[in-house]
Amino acid sequence: MPSIKRIDHLAVVVSDLQEALSFWEDALGLSVSRVEAVPAEQSVVAFLPIGSGEIELVKPTTDDSGTAKFLAKHGPGMHHICFEVEGLDDLLARLKEHGIQLINETPVEKENGVRYAFIHPKSTHGVLVELYERTE
Amino acid sequence: MPSIKRIDHLAVVVSDLQEALSFWEDALGLSVSRVEAVPAEQSVVAFLPIGSGEIELVKPTTDDSGTAKFLAKHGPGMHHICFEVEGLDDLLARLKEHGIQLINETPVEKENGVRYAFIHPKSTHGVLVELYERTE
Repeated sequence: MPSIKRIDHLAVVVSDLQEALSFWEDALGLSVSRVEAVPAEQSVVAFLPIGSGEIELVKPTTDDSGTAKFLAKHGPGMHHICFEVEGLDDLLARLKEHGIQLINETPVEKENGVRYAFIHPKSTHGVLVELYERTE
Repeated sequence: MPSIKRIDHLAVVVSDLQEALSFWEDALGLSVSRVEAVPAEQSVVAFLPIGSGEIELVKPTTDDSGTAKFLAKHGPGMHHICFEVEGLDDLLARLKEHGIQLINETPVEKENGVRYAFIHPKSTHGVLVELYERTE
């Protein structure tokens, strides 16, 4: 049986990382654990841990990525919610059985043993949902 | 020193609770812990725990609440993120010192010892943020 373990992160699209951090870090008091360039997603991401999860501030670095288009259309704001799961393949199979539209029909494999897939917001009533699993 | 302890919940505005649950419960496999009418917020809320946090599905029950207007303007989707904090008064004072606009200048007190305040999305770069504290 697949299971949803926890809220891993909330991804927030920002137009300016330093301006966003003036709220999240300077005013609210969270701390950035790391800032990473993510070329595969054409973005730079700042990670701010909170309890067992984190906020991810995503700054697009090109104009034609998904987050760049989101930013152009909606302005900065919440982009997606990510859950850590166990049994990702079984969960994706169950979602398909229920007619849920997946953005990634099979999980995307990252170098560090992380596998993830996005569910299309058409099937979730407006919420872009990421599911990820650690295999190492 | 105030501190942000954890992601308490992600609130998702829905137009139809049963339709939304067909995704979150039937397909994804989360379980509803309770469904509550919240007259003060003119809504019905379904709570779905995940790890130390939860998803809250908020169905407006009138046409003129904040969530009803959100739904009319944006359609269903992510509405706000809530963090559990310690030292809410000190944190609100610090936010004001940083020029952050609060929706609730002083915390709203609920019967069960919970106090909360919302930060205006104008000051967070597009994210409606709720801060809440348990005092009992």
